[in-house]
Amino acid sequence: MVKEVGMIGLGRMGMGMSQRLLKHKIRVVAYNRSSDKVNAIARKGAVGSSSVSDLISKLKSKRKVVWLMLPAGKVTDDMIKRLLKELGKGDIIINGANSLYKNAERHDKLCKQKGIVFFDIGVSGGTHGLKNGYTLMIGGNKKLFREIEPLCKALAPRKGYGYFGPAGSGHFVKSVHNIIEYVYLEGIAEGVELLDNFKHDIDLAKATEVWGPASVINSWLIDLTTKALRRKDFKKIKPDIGSVTIKELEETRKSVKGYAPAFGVAVKVRKDKSKKFTLGKRVIAAVRNEFGGHKVRK
Amino acid sequence: MVKEVGMIGLGRMGMGMSQRLLKHKIRVVAYNRSSDKVNAIARKGAVGSSSVSDLISKLKSKRKVVWLMLPAGKVTDDMIKRLLKELGKGDIIINGANSLYKNAERHDKLCKQKGIVFFDIGVSGGTHGLKNGYTLMIGGNKKLFREIEPLCKALAPRKGYGYFGPAGSGHFVKSVHNIIEYVYLEGIAEGVELLDNFKHDIDLAKATEVWGPASVINSWLIDLTTKALRRKDFKKIKPDIGSVTIKELEETRKSVKGYAPAFGVAVKVRKDKSKKFTLGKRVIAAVRNEFGGHKVRK
Repeated sequence: MVKEVGMIGLGRMGMGMSQRLLKHKIRVVAYNRSSDKVNAIARKGAVGSSSVSDLISKLKSKRKVVWLMLPAGKVTDDMIKRLLKELGKGDIIINGANSLYKNAERHDKLCKQKGIVFFDIGVSGGTHGLKNGYTLMIGGNKKLFREIEPLCKALAPRKGYGYFGPAGSGHFVKSVHNIIEYVYLEGIAEGVELLDNFKHDIDLAKATEVWGPASVINSWLIDLTTKALRRKDFKKIKPDIGSVTIKELEETRKSVKGYAPAFGVAVKVRKDKSKKFTLGKRVIAAVRNEFGGHKVRK
Repeated sequence: MVKEVGMIGLGRMGMGMSQRLLKHKIRVVAYNRSSDKVNAIARKGAVGSSSVSDLISKLKSKRKVVWLMLPAGKVTDDMIKRLLKELGKGDIIINGANSLYKNAERHDKLCKQKGIVFFDIGVSGGTHGLKNGYTLMIGGNKKLFREIEPLCKALAPRKGYGYFGPAGSGHFVKSVHNIIEYVYLEGIAEGVELLDNFKHDIDLAKATEVWGPASVINSWLIDLTTKALRRKDFKKIKPDIGSVTIKELEETRKSVKGYAPAFGVAVKVRKDKSKKFTLGKRVIAAVRNEFGGHKVRK
């Protein structure tokens, strides 16, 4: 079983995950295009590397494991092609970035041709994952999943990871998670707008705050809404919801012929650039910033 | 400040609330149309009463407080009219049942004519409130709110109650809470259906379970979905969502000219009696049963 990982991509997610792995005594060899982030994680105990080849050479396990946390699309595709040239038979590639599940099926095929093992792992928890743990939704080879399970145990909170099926299943379950997230945020946005439209002045943050501890809708997103509404700069936040995942989620929905009209509404609202529903959109933008560090415009 | 309450209506909510009040050293005088429930709560330390007059006569405080947990509509209306005849100036009536905020405004006016103080308090937490506390959303006289605050402290979890404004504000905030609840449940239902439509078999309960501890959508309703999906009788539950609150929530939304399209979708799904979206509807029915004890049909 693996007690070591090569982490490629030290953005908000990859950096936090590396730190959590190190805390749980996993050896992390890290690589990132810009070396400042490599130096930062090296100071916290990781082994830094200056190139992909360097990273691979520094992995000591018989079965090398490389975990990608790169932007989806060409960057990830190119990295997987490169790794296929440099890794050996039986080694493992994990793609942890948000990606359409069909890409995972394609990557799995490419890997199989070279005798390399592929896993797609959806990761949720945002910038809070370092402290609370990262939820992991895993697809790939069931038998070999046990090999990478120590990494999952280190990253996830108790009962916070699961193996779901062949390659693609992990990213599929993550996409469905994101679809529900869209609907949750849309529900909160509609609720906050309704409160604001009432004839008496309602303290919006107090409403979401009292919903926090024990109401039927108590949830992390409600707690983050309270934080967002209490930001001093809240009213300056532009109601632009920059979501890179919309296209991927719409494709996912279509490919399984799913009936998901509330998700459809949430997508429409995110795409709408009109002045309508300004407060609602601002709430969505601000809460996304709270959980994921997604940039807000002012 | 009040350390005593007359509780009228010992259904799922009133019974649990009475127990929680007793645990927090509040004196409870209880009345219910059927005496078996009065006897049950008397065994737990409440003072039983055989009629409304009997209940009022057994309240010792200078300022008597009566809390109603009756079905909304005629039952509540009639009870308030009756109490107005029997209570004295300065006494307090609290309506804690789900009700359109405009009714609270009407009740408040009736009470004012008799010098009686009215509060509308929305209560959330379902059958779990006894253990976790009840979320309270309070409307009414701001100054006199302090008088009933000890009751709120006893019922609610920490930071789980709030005063929101003049009569009507409490039930309004509760209605918005319920609107968000509709959207949350619709999102979960759409997600579970999508998971079920995937080409590989996904363990539905495992998916919602791993989302529980730390994913972005972690929430009480997700945890209850896991429980619902694991019920032995889950597949026997009819996809009928019996919601008594639909009309009231639609009226609330219309009255504030709110833009709430995802809520609109959720309402449409609840009203739809076709075979479409069977699993999704079954999930909603089963989760409502988990949190509120709302009956499911088999």
